[in-house]
Amino acid sequence: MTHKAAIIGGGVIGGGWAARFLLNGWDVAVFDPDPEARRKIDEVLANARRALPALYDKVLPAEGRLTFHGDLVETVAGAAWVQESVPERLELKHKVHGQITRAADAGAVIGSSTSGFKPSELTAEGAKVIVAHPFNPVYLLPLVELVGAPTLCDRAATLLREIGMHPLTIRKEIDAHIADRLLEAVWRESLWLVKDGIATTEEIDEAIRMGFGLRWAQMGLFETYRIAGGEAGMKHFMEQFGPALEWPWTKLMDVPAFTPELVDLIAGQSDAQSGHMSIRELERLRDDNLVGMMRALRKSGSGAGGTINAHEAGLPDPEPLDLPVTVDRVIPQSWTDYNGHMNETHYVEVSCQATDRFMEMIGADAAYVASGGSYFTVENHVRYLAEMLAGDRVTVTTQVLDGRGKKMHLFHRLTKADGTLAATVETLLLHVDIKTRRSAPPSEAVAAQLSRFAEAHADLPKPKGVGLAVGQRG
Amino acid sequence: MTHKAAIIGGGVIGGGWAARFLLNGWDVAVFDPDPEARRKIDEVLANARRALPALYDKVLPAEGRLTFHGDLVETVAGAAWVQESVPERLELKHKVHGQITRAADAGAVIGSSTSGFKPSELTAEGAKVIVAHPFNPVYLLPLVELVGAPTLCDRAATLLREIGMHPLTIRKEIDAHIADRLLEAVWRESLWLVKDGIATTEEIDEAIRMGFGLRWAQMGLFETYRIAGGEAGMKHFMEQFGPALEWPWTKLMDVPAFTPELVDLIAGQSDAQSGHMSIRELERLRDDNLVGMMRALRKSGSGAGGTINAHEAGLPDPEPLDLPVTVDRVIPQSWTDYNGHMNETHYVEVSCQATDRFMEMIGADAAYVASGGSYFTVENHVRYLAEMLAGDRVTVTTQVLDGRGKKMHLFHRLTKADGTLAATVETLLLHVDIKTRRSAPPSEAVAAQLSRFAEAHADLPKPKGVGLAVGQRG
Repeated sequence: MTHKAAIIGGGVIGGGWAARFLLNGWDVAVFDPDPEARRKIDEVLANARRALPALYDKVLPAEGRLTFHGDLVETVAGAAWVQESVPERLELKHKVHGQITRAADAGAVIGSSTSGFKPSELTAEGAKVIVAHPFNPVYLLPLVELVGAPTLCDRAATLLREIGMHPLTIRKEIDAHIADRLLEAVWRESLWLVKDGIATTEEIDEAIRMGFGLRWAQMGLFETYRIAGGEAGMKHFMEQFGPALEWPWTKLMDVPAFTPELVDLIAGQSDAQSGHMSIRELERLRDDNLVGMMRALRKSGSGAGGTINAHEAGLPDPEPLDLPVTVDRVIPQSWTDYNGHMNETHYVEVSCQATDRFMEMIGADAAYVASGGSYFTVENHVRYLAEMLAGDRVTVTTQVLDGRGKKMHLFHRLTKADGTLAATVETLLLHVDIKTRRSAPPSEAVAAQLSRFAEAHADLPKPKGVGLAVGQRG
Repeated sequence: MTHKAAIIGGGVIGGGWAARFLLNGWDVAVFDPDPEARRKIDEVLANARRALPALYDKVLPAEGRLTFHGDLVETVAGAAWVQESVPERLELKHKVHGQITRAADAGAVIGSSTSGFKPSELTAEGAKVIVAHPFNPVYLLPLVELVGAPTLCDRAATLLREIGMHPLTIRKEIDAHIADRLLEAVWRESLWLVKDGIATTEEIDEAIRMGFGLRWAQMGLFETYRIAGGEAGMKHFMEQFGPALEWPWTKLMDVPAFTPELVDLIAGQSDAQSGHMSIRELERLRDDNLVGMMRALRKSGSGAGGTINAHEAGLPDPEPLDLPVTVDRVIPQSWTDYNGHMNETHYVEVSCQATDRFMEMIGADAAYVASGGSYFTVENHVRYLAEMLAGDRVTVTTQVLDGRGKKMHLFHRLTKADGTLAATVETLLLHVDIKTRRSAPPSEAVAAQLSRFAEAHADLPKPKGVGLAVGQRG
């Protein structure tokens, strides 16, 4: 059954929530009196549609239905999740939370995107709300800080995992939760550095992204310092660097006066740094960088890479047709090249994913490889028939040409969503013993399952393109 | 001419400097009275050798010579760069800097890795030193903070760029420079959060790496907030969030007492978080994540990706043999798969790099593509002949089989450093008009240069493997 989410307040954060739910197959109802709300959410959605599917090697569920409402009661009716993202004024939050609590289903999660208020403040007038604090862009970054009643947080965590997010339930409430306290500390110190003329906004950004920012994106603070402690460990690190706490390395006991001059100084430097790009261009650059880095983290499963891997494992495999469908996915931006289309390399990457999936289907899966058997590719013949662009959906069908003995001879057809045949890949694999790295027969179980496919495909016509050398016409 | 670097103090930081210089072709002389110094530097070097070359699609210069010395004067003789990384005690730094200044060449850069001391403190006794503060792992992270005499910093910046680093010259000296001030702010706040039981070390790491850590790795703080300000810009962001400076979102006006109980609490939580992995395993995980993310950033050229792109552009292209050598590179970890070897996809990626390089050699380069012409691959036939492993060096030679009209028919041989033929790729491309996406003749200049190669290769024997269909033996 399709879930429904209600989005109360549709700015950058509310729009990000809407996109995250929609692209994971939820219906989304939006309430926002701003006449610009629909345009703003459409812009966030356009960004999300080009970025979120690119994190995955399967397709996400079909997009849910997006509706806009002028009535809060109608908006929240039947919603399993209601997310409030209105401005940070406590009396406004109280009013909205009261209305939502009265109108929402008894079992609904009511989350507030507040970055500053604690649950004890939000629930002071009896609302059933918890803090569910996300990070921009909400459709890409996994983190959601949950604070509030444990049973509500548990229910929220389950639903967040279903939409590919990483819930972090905080043990005790505190102003600004966790991440924003750390951000605030860096923000204050950075304002001092600019105000005192030590560094410009651009220089501070370089000091972050050329160094510790790269460390933090994959391990955070403590695990990084554990490594810095080396063989002697964390205790050694603490003892070595602990005394620095007493040194005058920060101005943070003091807050810079927030004058118009400081605002102009920062805004002017930011214009000099980034003013050559529009906000939309910056957003797309950010998203492409995030997608590229998060895809890179999938290799080790660290941090966000692990979140994506876990989410993808729960996505359904493609439904088999006459021929098994072995891939159904979207082309990420990072796969395109200077010709503006998917590079030849990634046609083979998709073909390889099809082979891997087919291997799983005949029982030559990860456990089988761990037990010592696998298939190695010995030859590929790729015919590039149509261009593919970033965002294109591609499905692959796999036909078995030969499955006798150690051989697995397959024919993959890569087809675009409009039915265009984009490529064919004729691929020949040999079964090997992983220890000796030499060819060897597959297990009886794998041989039997491969034969079953080979027999089922035996009467199919020989595909156009099979058995040809480069440049030969069929 | 080979440069020489002298490394004074060979711990994790000194060893990282040694590796960065060595792998960029510098000779490195090490002075460290610690009898373990050689073992420690060898371990850092082993990590660096598996990670740094994997950032590039060309090979780095041949490794320099590493020597260990018991005498400081001998160590620094003839060095263009002397880097001091001894413990953070000012009287020790003064003593070592004095010795170096007297012994070093007049033109040498003398850098101190100090994270805390200012140039005015370091030079109080007349030493010619500047601050050159790097970040662990020094062989991967580009950032070096330079503080001190402008002419010395300028000379240092030039040399650092040559070894692929990003020098950031700081306008005015300040305790702890820039990055460590920001790190210190987060460290203090994090200690409070653990001490007060709000979060464990692992939860704080998740709050960082699942959210803002990913943002900071590619844009830093201010550009991220510029985006958060949306269409209204940085000034709007400041005005909206500035007042939060007055809120009680931080404990930073106060420093947690550094008691044995706090040390045990942190060290115990860190063991629970990461104790299942050794420091070496954590280092390799970190390095693989960094390489993957930094390679991903090369696509956009943001941050560290831009630094690598600029460095690689200055590396020499392979020397032509009888056949042009079109690729000379090392296989990164991220290209391997569950079979423990380079995945079939990346044989095609290497082949594509060879085609791209050959296109440059005949004048079909980036400027040519921008002017409207390019080649699209229409067919590939890949014979996978030998496994390749992470760290393997591979060279590719390219033979022209046909270069008439719109056709470019090439044969790439991928060869490992030990001479093993790892794969052949027969590839057929057609020249296209980029605007119409249809085949069209190349420019006269490109046609002429392609013909020149085709004629030179016309008398070569037909390579084994050409003109075969999948499964056919030649």
